[in-house]
Amino acid sequence: MTAATGPIEDDLPAVFSAVESEVRSYCRGWPTILATAKDSWVTDTEGRRYLDFFAGAGALNYGHNNDQLKSALLDYLSGDGIVHSLDIATTAKQNFLETFDRLILKPRGLDYKVQFPGPTGTNSVEAALKLARKVTSRESIISFTNAFHGMTLGSLSVTGNSMKRAGAGIPLVHATPMPYDNYFGGVTEDFHWFERVLDDSGSGLNRPAAVIVETVQGEGGLNVARLEWLQELANLCRKRDILLIVDDVQMGCGRTGEFFSFEAAGIVPDIVTLSKSISGYGLPMALTLFRPDLDVWAPGEHNGTFRGHNPAFVTATKALELYWEKPTFAAETAEKGLLLRAGLDEIAAAYDGVSARGRGMAQGLMFTDADLAADVCRSAFERGALMETSGPSDEVVKLLPPLTTSRSDLEAGLQILAESVAATV
Amino acid sequence: MTAATGPIEDDLPAVFSAVESEVRSYCRGWPTILATAKDSWVTDTEGRRYLDFFAGAGALNYGHNNDQLKSALLDYLSGDGIVHSLDIATTAKQNFLETFDRLILKPRGLDYKVQFPGPTGTNSVEAALKLARKVTSRESIISFTNAFHGMTLGSLSVTGNSMKRAGAGIPLVHATPMPYDNYFGGVTEDFHWFERVLDDSGSGLNRPAAVIVETVQGEGGLNVARLEWLQELANLCRKRDILLIVDDVQMGCGRTGEFFSFEAAGIVPDIVTLSKSISGYGLPMALTLFRPDLDVWAPGEHNGTFRGHNPAFVTATKALELYWEKPTFAAETAEKGLLLRAGLDEIAAAYDGVSARGRGMAQGLMFTDADLAADVCRSAFERGALMETSGPSDEVVKLLPPLTTSRSDLEAGLQILAESVAATV
Amino acid sequence: MTAATGPIEDDLPAVFSAVESEVRSYCRGWPTILATAKDSWVTDTEGRRYLDFFAGAGALNYGHNNDQLKSALLDYLSGDGIVHSLDIATTAKQNFLETFDRLILKPRGLDYKVQFPGPTGTNSVEAALKLARKVTSRESIISFTNAFHGMTLGSLSVTGNSMKRAGAGIPLVHATPMPYDNYFGGVTEDFHWFERVLDDSGSGLNRPAAVIVETVQGEGGLNVARLEWLQELANLCRKRDILLIVDDVQMGCGRTGEFFSFEAAGIVPDIVTLSKSISGYGLPMALTLFRPDLDVWAPGEHNGTFRGHNPAFVTATKALELYWEKPTFAAETAEKGLLLRAGLDEIAAAYDGVSARGRGMAQGLMFTDADLAADVCRSAFERGALMETSGPSDEVVKLLPPLTTSRSDLEAGLQILAESVAATV
Amino acid sequence: MTAATGPIEDDLPAVFSAVESEVRSYCRGWPTILATAKDSWVTDTEGRRYLDFFAGAGALNYGHNNDQLKSALLDYLSGDGIVHSLDIATTAKQNFLETFDRLILKPRGLDYKVQFPGPTGTNSVEAALKLARKVTSRESIISFTNAFHGMTLGSLSVTGNSMKRAGAGIPLVHATPMPYDNYFGGVTEDFHWFERVLDDSGSGLNRPAAVIVETVQGEGGLNVARLEWLQELANLCRKRDILLIVDDVQMGCGRTGEFFSFEAAGIVPDIVTLSKSISGYGLPMALTLFRPDLDVWAPGEHNGTFRGHNPAFVTATKALELYWEKPTFAAETAEKGLLLRAGLDEIAAAYDGVSARGRGMAQGLMFTDADLAADVCRSAFERGALMETSGPSDEVVKLLPPLTTSRSDLEAGLQILAESVAATV
Repeated sequence: MTAATGPIEDDLPAVFSAVESEVRSYCRGWPTILATAKDSWVTDTEGRRYLDFFAGAGALNYGHNNDQLKSALLDYLSGDGIVHSLDIATTAKQNFLETFDRLILKPRGLDYKVQFPGPTGTNSVEAALKLARKVTSRESIISFTNAFHGMTLGSLSVTGNSMKRAGAGIPLVHATPMPYDNYFGGVTEDFHWFERVLDDSGSGLNRPAAVIVETVQGEGGLNVARLEWLQELANLCRKRDILLIVDDVQMGCGRTGEFFSFEAAGIVPDIVTLSKSISGYGLPMALTLFRPDLDVWAPGEHNGTFRGHNPAFVTATKALELYWEKPTFAAETAEKGLLLRAGLDEIAAAYDGVSARGRGMAQGLMFTDADLAADVCRSAFERGALMETSGPSDEVVKLLPPLTTSRSDLEAGLQILAESVAATV
Repeated sequence: MTAATGPIEDDLPAVFSAVESEVRSYCRGWPTILATAKDSWVTDTEGRRYLDFFAGAGALNYGHNNDQLKSALLDYLSGDGIVHSLDIATTAKQNFLETFDRLILKPRGLDYKVQFPGPTGTNSVEAALKLARKVTSRESIISFTNAFHGMTLGSLSVTGNSMKRAGAGIPLVHATPMPYDNYFGGVTEDFHWFERVLDDSGSGLNRPAAVIVETVQGEGGLNVARLEWLQELANLCRKRDILLIVDDVQMGCGRTGEFFSFEAAGIVPDIVTLSKSISGYGLPMALTLFRPDLDVWAPGEHNGTFRGHNPAFVTATKALELYWEKPTFAAETAEKGLLLRAGLDEIAAAYDGVSARGRGMAQGLMFTDADLAADVCRSAFERGALMETSGPSDEVVKLLPPLTTSRSDLEAGLQILAESVAATV
Repeated sequence: MTAATGPIEDDLPAVFSAVESEVRSYCRGWPTILATAKDSWVTDTEGRRYLDFFAGAGALNYGHNNDQLKSALLDYLSGDGIVHSLDIATTAKQNFLETFDRLILKPRGLDYKVQFPGPTGTNSVEAALKLARKVTSRESIISFTNAFHGMTLGSLSVTGNSMKRAGAGIPLVHATPMPYDNYFGGVTEDFHWFERVLDDSGSGLNRPAAVIVETVQGEGGLNVARLEWLQELANLCRKRDILLIVDDVQMGCGRTGEFFSFEAAGIVPDIVTLSKSISGYGLPMALTLFRPDLDVWAPGEHNGTFRGHNPAFVTATKALELYWEKPTFAAETAEKGLLLRAGLDEIAAAYDGVSARGRGMAQGLMFTDADLAADVCRSAFERGALMETSGPSDEVVKLLPPLTTSRSDLEAGLQILAESVAATV
Repeated sequence: MTAATGPIEDDLPAVFSAVESEVRSYCRGWPTILATAKDSWVTDTEGRRYLDFFAGAGALNYGHNNDQLKSALLDYLSGDGIVHSLDIATTAKQNFLETFDRLILKPRGLDYKVQFPGPTGTNSVEAALKLARKVTSRESIISFTNAFHGMTLGSLSVTGNSMKRAGAGIPLVHATPMPYDNYFGGVTEDFHWFERVLDDSGSGLNRPAAVIVETVQGEGGLNVARLEWLQELANLCRKRDILLIVDDVQMGCGRTGEFFSFEAAGIVPDIVTLSKSISGYGLPMALTLFRPDLDVWAPGEHNGTFRGHNPAFVTATKALELYWEKPTFAAETAEKGLLLRAGLDEIAAAYDGVSARGRGMAQGLMFTDADLAADVCRSAFERGALMETSGPSDEVVKLLPPLTTSRSDLEAGLQILAESVAATV
């Protein structure tokens, strides 16, 4: 929901428009002041409750103020645990590293080193791109149409959205877009163009250091890459000695079912970026993972003041223990995803120009008439649910409910959506 | 302390070297595991206590786990206040905006809009550079020798350190370094070269969008710009229609006495970046401030998942109320700065090749024999104090104690430093 | 013939290898010293004669030392006509401008301004790119796979060959390659990918200032764009307000029949580059042509010492009068092209893995086994004919005989080629 | 004389403004049509004669249509010598290489390989920059304030003039300007800033591949580098392993007395560019010279259609034989330079705000009131002499008479200049 500028924001206290920059965006579409939250529900200062099918753009996979995570966090803070430590060793960091290794990496046979970049997705992407360039001594990166990787200069170069790119104020270079899966509606062979220009020494393409890809493009409109497309991409990269970076900032941490969104495809990326839900509690945190032989960083070569945000390590550790010790959570998420999708398919079936799309608990409704999507979200807000649009023309109603949302709340949200569509289309 | 790679890190549990990337740095010089902290003291898992003259590289100006901030934070979290909100309006955000406006902007006559970029210094710098370029339609930025502004691609372009620049893996362009104050030991007139190339249409300098400057270069070796140099720079920018960005990420929030480090010079930058100590509690948070007429952002044109980190808004608000409602805090900081400097001058006077430098509570000792600085820090660590090096050759022992450090603790730290120097030189 | 490094160059006097740089290339494949030339024949110092099917890579469309041009040149030089004049007005320049306007522009209804950049093709391309960027205030240029536009930095950015690109020593940016006609063997719709990324605001493609295209890619391997492809490209550019630059450096001046190679397609480019045969005598000269409304140059904004090379203006004027006053020459060229092609088709038909390609008097034989092409050229040289290879793998024997070559000489050349193929394949 | 746009151009036939682009410049200040020329004199179509103190911007060091060169040229052309040969070996090329080696390189102990890039100065500079980057694997180039190196993208990046730079339409990067000799009026130590940023690992300067310098900046306003400054620069480059490129396009071929302008300083550049007067007759030709160990070009890695312009080789060979077999010519040039300078000093002494500057036969008058310089040139034109302005504000009347100009013609020119100054100031 990048550019909604409704007059309804006038309902907010003046300080928001008087003091905060024009860059603010979500508050324009959802003109209320949030006060408290619990699990899948948020409450505003007027006591109105909203069912949250947005979840901090995927940063709240375990819901708001999850009681068990909250308890660990309060204990840690109350006990004067270290809050800020850059990359000094702390007990909280040790616990996280051990738990992440034990519950995530080892069981999946993933031999990754863990880097703590600055605590945001874009910082993780910047670290990934720098490392890929350093390792290969090449400068060019292949990105995909409608990709979103972040807003700092390196990440922005591999991001598709033209409005956001224009904000750079300088020509964005060193990146070349390739068609994402199904970009041509299945008409063209998958890597036709990409392989041709890689193999043709006269193509004019600078040889790339890496490919960066999302398995499902959330901001790009819930475009889902088929698993076989991802496999073919991984093969292509391996054969041609190009590093494969999977940006799992939004789709990782169980959003699509398994912890990493690429697991279903059976591929092993060279570099992985994680952020958003990794802390489990909405606290800033990010990781960059890579094969040990790629770990050519000099000490401090990429750093950042908040790379040791220990409260986030505490909740992250607890979240791993709670949800990833056993396979149940992934299975339940998959099931809920099917439930969600069935509901969407039902709505879509009732209208022309509406279709469902997504994977796992990242699902959405696409409207051929793009303007309808924003109208549906506005209607849903009035009915008590948070849902945002995505896609190049904001044509998709994107649903990212907390993975912990109950079945009944999922059904309640679907009901609101159905009513909103009915009231709009 | 960018590149210290001592064997003493071997004392740490294997998980740190086995799982964490080689990029880690502080843990190499301080090979211990921190567990808890209070005010100016940190305690490791063995119960050893360290006096913290490092303060999270300036992110802990009010000390560790400051009781009054902690209380506000625990209340907020316990009450299930909103944790994560992107740029949706929340009560925590409203309180922060109102308090920041009332206690910081208004009293200083600063008419700034407030942007919440991603919650890190580098993200604030990226936003500042993008905005400056968008406003002016020019692409080039003037930076200064030995500047440090961050590690994402835009910020790195205006950072001086060659090791960190090399990490980019692509040529860093669109920035031109100019000599920082006293770069030539006072021999050359201050803006001789800069003004000459600006005014000479044949100089080959692309006309700059903005100048970005730190009033005191922390990472660059505690280089202090004279106030008249800053004034002259501000005049130069105003006359030639170049935007002036003050990066106050490390020197803001009272580090040099007053809230903004540029206040003493009586200048008003066009854009200001803040982070590190703005949350007051070591929580990730950042602001970009700018004149209202520069607020040309489109909604969402620069965004980020963690730009609405409400726990940080809560502690930030509380910190402003506690320390910036009255002028006492700034005055005390100034005094403590003098105390600190007097101690350093005394040490320096006793040795050849050692000199004191700094402003306010950002002070340091420079060693002509650069290797000594790291030895002094190592010795101080063994004696129970955290102090780090900075400067292009790591030749400066940099002291950034919490501003709330008591006079006796400041003296204790100076005593440790004196002993460390004596044991080393 | 970019990389032939045969030992046979050892036959040349030592001065060539001792004093001239390793960058020399043609002399390696044709290890002889040329002394004199007339029309389609060159003679070496040993008196050996070679039939020239190379014609200075297309710079000698009217043959060597064409008697009528020679006469005009000698008269001019003998009479002490101005030789060098930058862009001062001269009689020679006036005559050229009037004649070019009268015989080339006016009859074709082309309302172009004429710029004299430096006297080389790459300089004309650099001028075209600069102008397109200045007019549109955009920086990105679309080029095509296997394009060749020159070796200076701007032209090299839009050139496909990876070996030549690597010579830049810096990342070449601001250009994006698109598939040339038939790049996928006719499987994919022509502008599928190009139109899709232009129209998709999330594609990540910077909006281009211009498209630069050759109607037939000479260096790229005699790839011929179909006329309908060129028309569709022109439509696409016009509809989306992108400038269309036709690089007619090699294919202009009658090589494909009509004066401009784009005439057959009935399109009118916004900018046209000309060089190579424009002087008619192998003398350095280049033009950049563009619509009057694009003529936003400031005086001297693009200049060059040799942009007023008057002997070239004299022979250029004479060549226009001799060959372009009447339609006969174009018609004859077309006919000779058919003759040439028929001969090639005949050879191709006799072998597997050999095929003919080209347009007008730019024709060639492609070998599936790329190495054969160089062998055929070597064999032809031994048999007394100059023919060079082109294409990304040097897999095409490229024939660019002077347009004035007699039918019997064309047949003689085809005979040599047939024998060379027979001896090689 | 970059931007003169006088109404007096209206005197020219309409074809020049109707058909030629607005980019034309010299014809605006000198609104006449030149027809013939001999030695230091040109004659227009009205029979008016002009004494040429401009000499094709330094491309006509031996005068117009020099009889001995002309004779060699006519013989060659009449005898059907090869005109165009790319880099195929020819007798004309062999003669040139042998003669250049015998008369120029060997006697000076210069062990250079010779590259024939495209036949223009900018192409020679592009080749030099590419080679320097390839050899060092670094991308950055140091240029100097008010440098002029050419108009193609690589050369333009190292050129100072802001109007010409703006013509690029993209940000020009990979080059950093440093102060040319005497840029601060002798106040600052010569390489203060340059050495400091090179040696400071925190300076933010990308480590340069090469320095490119003119010994006298012609277009930049006849700024003369002192020989000791050049020596210090050469030392600085050698000590820090940075390649030194001397751009001798305008000041080479005897303009300052000796063949290369750097000989007087006793330095040996790593790479040298030559063009303008190298052919001796105003014909397009250029050379790039470099140390044999830098000759890492792959065959054809930098090429160009007109790199084998044999008529230019013929006149170049003849010019070397005529003027450089014996030391007389250099000595006479030096003497004439003194004569010219004495005349200028005399004029300058008579006025406030007028001063003489230059070296050898590159001399000029600088006017504190910049507008006067163009007025003086206009007045000189009316009096029958061609003189142009240069410098960032066109504040210098630049005199580059043919080196073969007789003493009496030099005096005649000085007389015209004196009258023009008198009539103007």
